[in-house]
Amino acid sequence: MTTADAPRRPRGRPGNDKETVLRRAIDLFNRQGYDATSITDLASDLGLTKSAIYHHFPSKEAILAAALDEALDGLAAAVASAADATRGDRAYDRLRATIEASVAILASHLPAVTLLLRVRGNSPLEQSALERRRRIDDQLAGLVGRAVAEGDLRADVPPDVISRLVFGTVNSLVDWYHPDGPIPPERLAALVSGVLFDGLHARF
Amino acid sequence: MTTADAPRRPRGRPGNDKETVLRRAIDLFNRQGYDATSITDLASDLGLTKSAIYHHFPSKEAILAAALDEALDGLAAAVASAADATRGDRAYDRLRATIEASVAILASHLPAVTLLLRVRGNSPLEQSALERRRRIDDQLAGLVGRAVAEGDLRADVPPDVISRLVFGTVNSLVDWYHPDGPIPPERLAALVSGVLFDGLHARF
Repeated sequence: MTTADAPRRPRGRPGNDKETVLRRAIDLFNRQGYDATSITDLASDLGLTKSAIYHHFPSKEAILAAALDEALDGLAAAVASAADATRGDRAYDRLRATIEASVAILASHLPAVTLLLRVRGNSPLEQSALERRRRIDDQLAGLVGRAVAEGDLRADVPPDVISRLVFGTVNSLVDWYHPDGPIPPERLAALVSGVLFDGLHARF
Repeated sequence: MTTADAPRRPRGRPGNDKETVLRRAIDLFNRQGYDATSITDLASDLGLTKSAIYHHFPSKEAILAAALDEALDGLAAAVASAADATRGDRAYDRLRATIEASVAILASHLPAVTLLLRVRGNSPLEQSALERRRRIDDQLAGLVGRAVAEGDLRADVPPDVISRLVFGTVNSLVDWYHPDGPIPPERLAALVSGVLFDGLHARF
């Protein structure tokens, strides 16, 4: 194996780097629940000692913090870049671009976003993640309200119900979507946005 | 209070009947998880002795079975009655009627359906509930496939993705819908079906 094949793998024992610990921890948290998973479980899953894990992360909560930051930073960046790309456009176009960017982040950071969506606020860290998530949701809900007011979204459904249905549809992707399945992440965003905005009916 | 106000309340201590035990158990299972809830917790929540609960249900699992049957019988009946009402119609119309009937059941049996959607197959009972749920989902997926084949549903999205998005949108209702909020159950079904089939765009 050349260096080019594995540019991020550090020298020494393979698979022991911080990134690997984080990936495997996120998978384990998603599989058996964060509260039910101990550093001992993670060490056993990775075939490492606990101190090898503590070399990278001071605590189990620090791993959760890194995972939630990955998801939230990605979603916040998606919202910001969609806003930049559609500056001056109608709220409808900005909303649609924002949904597509969010779906792309969800698809490409699926395990971290899955973990985020399961957080229930059981600790100050989880509460702060929920608060960041709420601020992102509020930005989207604001766009929905403006798009309805501008006459581009149907007015027979209350704006907060539109927001809830959009979040519900997008968030439920974590229950079935597989990035290595038949639909690549970049196509998923267009599919979901097409169905959400234009519906399932064949006339489109 | 007249008899007409509370036709199902039996004589004797109020709130101790089988139906009350079932309702409170479902709420408690949803709040703290079925596995984490004991008959002792339920007795304490109801202010009853454990034997008062065992008078109505032989075990915690029997309560879960009653709850899952409530949800599954309701959904199965919704699918069957929508099929009856649309016999001979195009698959699109039958699908739309089935979705609306399912949303109405979800809204009017929200706690039991919420519990059903959280079942992970941790016991033979849960596996059998998942199997019944899968058969209902398969009927809907079959209708989706036929409606696409008949040219009534958009063909640019794979039928199985359409099914997943429909299930995701409908199932996510349990995360935010409140039957005693501004949208009554009967209106919810029309709203969701309108958004799913015709989209969010204002042209409809």
